[in-house]
Amino acid sequence: MKKILNSADTFVRDTMEGIEAAYGDRVGLLDGDFRVLVSRYPAPEGKVGIVTAGGSGHLPLFLGYVGQGMLDGCAVGEVFASPAAEKMADMIRACDRGAGVLCLYGNYNGDVFNFRMACEDVEFDDIETRQLLGRDDVASSPKDRADKRRGVAGLVYAFKIAGAAAERMMTLDEVTAVTARALDNIRTMGVALSPCIVPKVGQPTFTIEEGQIEIGMGIHGEAGIEVRPMMTADEIARLILETIEADMPLNAGDEVSVMINGLGGTPLEEQLIVYRSVHARLAERGVAVVMPHVGEFATSMEMAGLSVSVFKLDAELKELLRAPAATPFYTNANK
Amino acid sequence: MKKILNSADTFVRDTMEGIEAAYGDRVGLLDGDFRVLVSRYPAPEGKVGIVTAGGSGHLPLFLGYVGQGMLDGCAVGEVFASPAAEKMADMIRACDRGAGVLCLYGNYNGDVFNFRMACEDVEFDDIETRQLLGRDDVASSPKDRADKRRGVAGLVYAFKIAGAAAERMMTLDEVTAVTARALDNIRTMGVALSPCIVPKVGQPTFTIEEGQIEIGMGIHGEAGIEVRPMMTADEIARLILETIEADMPLNAGDEVSVMINGLGGTPLEEQLIVYRSVHARLAERGVAVVMPHVGEFATSMEMAGLSVSVFKLDAELKELLRAPAATPFYTNANK
Repeated sequence: MKKILNSADTFVRDTMEGIEAAYGDRVGLLDGDFRVLVSRYPAPEGKVGIVTAGGSGHLPLFLGYVGQGMLDGCAVGEVFASPAAEKMADMIRACDRGAGVLCLYGNYNGDVFNFRMACEDVEFDDIETRQLLGRDDVASSPKDRADKRRGVAGLVYAFKIAGAAAERMMTLDEVTAVTARALDNIRTMGVALSPCIVPKVGQPTFTIEEGQIEIGMGIHGEAGIEVRPMMTADEIARLILETIEADMPLNAGDEVSVMINGLGGTPLEEQLIVYRSVHARLAERGVAVVMPHVGEFATSMEMAGLSVSVFKLDAELKELLRAPAATPFYTNANK
Repeated sequence: MKKILNSADTFVRDTMEGIEAAYGDRVGLLDGDFRVLVSRYPAPEGKVGIVTAGGSGHLPLFLGYVGQGMLDGCAVGEVFASPAAEKMADMIRACDRGAGVLCLYGNYNGDVFNFRMACEDVEFDDIETRQLLGRDDVASSPKDRADKRRGVAGLVYAFKIAGAAAERMMTLDEVTAVTARALDNIRTMGVALSPCIVPKVGQPTFTIEEGQIEIGMGIHGEAGIEVRPMMTADEIARLILETIEADMPLNAGDEVSVMINGLGGTPLEEQLIVYRSVHARLAERGVAVVMPHVGEFATSMEMAGLSVSVFKLDAELKELLRAPAATPFYTNANK
């Protein structure tokens, strides 16, 4: 296993301590608990709290979006495993400023189950909560069962919208409504070329043969739609856009933001080559790209591959996307 | 070969076109030439130009630092190969605002040879130039032959200092002097766990056995100091810091910036685990870390491994490091 760590058992704790050592002026562990990271940017009374949770191994997702204009808190579990409901409840309590808390996270059974318990738990503290699920991965379930889809890189756009709405002191219902509209307008699809290794497992949990590409694989290695012979960047961009557009039609005059998300082991050069193809294809159709995001936003550790997200904008969503945000791992100051 | 591209022959061109498609409002190809990227941020007459050049395959190095407060231009060659002197000369001419141009690049034979020719060439246009070489890699040559050392991730700090000095409208000699002082205060050392594949070669040019780690490997796979059995993150941090400190002593009360640079295939989690160790070791010694940089700054495509850079600061260098900068791939707005 070619990983730089101290031990598989301390992988998550050491990562969290690294974040606190580097960025302790802006984010920190809640009461020293390495399962919960909270923002230290001052949040005014009456601001809606935005929180998430999920497994480790996806940095910058989820932890990396805690900061100004995005998340107030994030709870993490072991690599690819949900954190406990109790940790989520602690986080919700810490992030409530009297206006309630929006729990915004990916559609995975463990997270859904635990967040429900956590939200019931904090009711006793008179904290109002709402829950919204990211289900942007079009490859994970067909359109007629879109409620079964998993949340992947498109969640980052949703964090951005929710965070900006909360910063504008919108109410919990208003923040929830605009974020729900954003989620309805986000689609993602990915391809994978190589697996990753969960530290405690110590070996890949699946293989992808040389010369093969897995279409639609999930960020935990969930099987995709099919395995194909290796494709060119242009072919990959075309297949992904066609699949996304079959699900969410795009028309001339539309404005979208595009995210090319490297899964970990795919160089920025290759991500840019795919962006080139996506951009050209959209431009041909008269679809304009606003604030492209190219880089690593939601990884599967060292997995090779990438995903493409398309976020269809309206005037309000565009303004919220552009509103300033700064976390240790994300800023749109240069986007 | 598990790479997402259209063809090895168009790898660099397609990457450059991807950059222009995504960020064409801020950077662009010089006269449509995919070998030269220039900043479109307005540079006032009388500002010293800051330029670099090098091989492709290291993004964000070198291209990613073209923008506001860093580089005015960058010429690139094929993967791991120097661009032609003619391209460098075109770039220098385009980046001169009447105050001369500082050429700041890594100590590699091809780049040195070609930059010398380019600087001689632009003398005929009455453009004054200076050249400074990054030689931060302590593992590439012993201290008594430090002039032979290669430039690696520490170059990014030098770009930041030079760019900020130029923005303050310092003269060419002043910019050169403060950047030279920065270079004297930067040391880097890296470790590698796996090789990378040059697209036109199609297979790894070397191997690192399972259970082995290469200490001091260069960003083109140049052999390091030794191959060792795999080490823990704490052991790696200790070995690197001891080697750097033997070269550049650190004392209680010193302020440094630390860069943990992922080489491509090493997840952010692992980089943060190493940062944790480096931070703790420096804190024990009374050395304070300012503006830590953790992420991918100078990669070798998908190579697994990382480097640690230490940049010893004085009051002026700290101020220049903190001055605003924004390129499509770098900003210190959130650091």
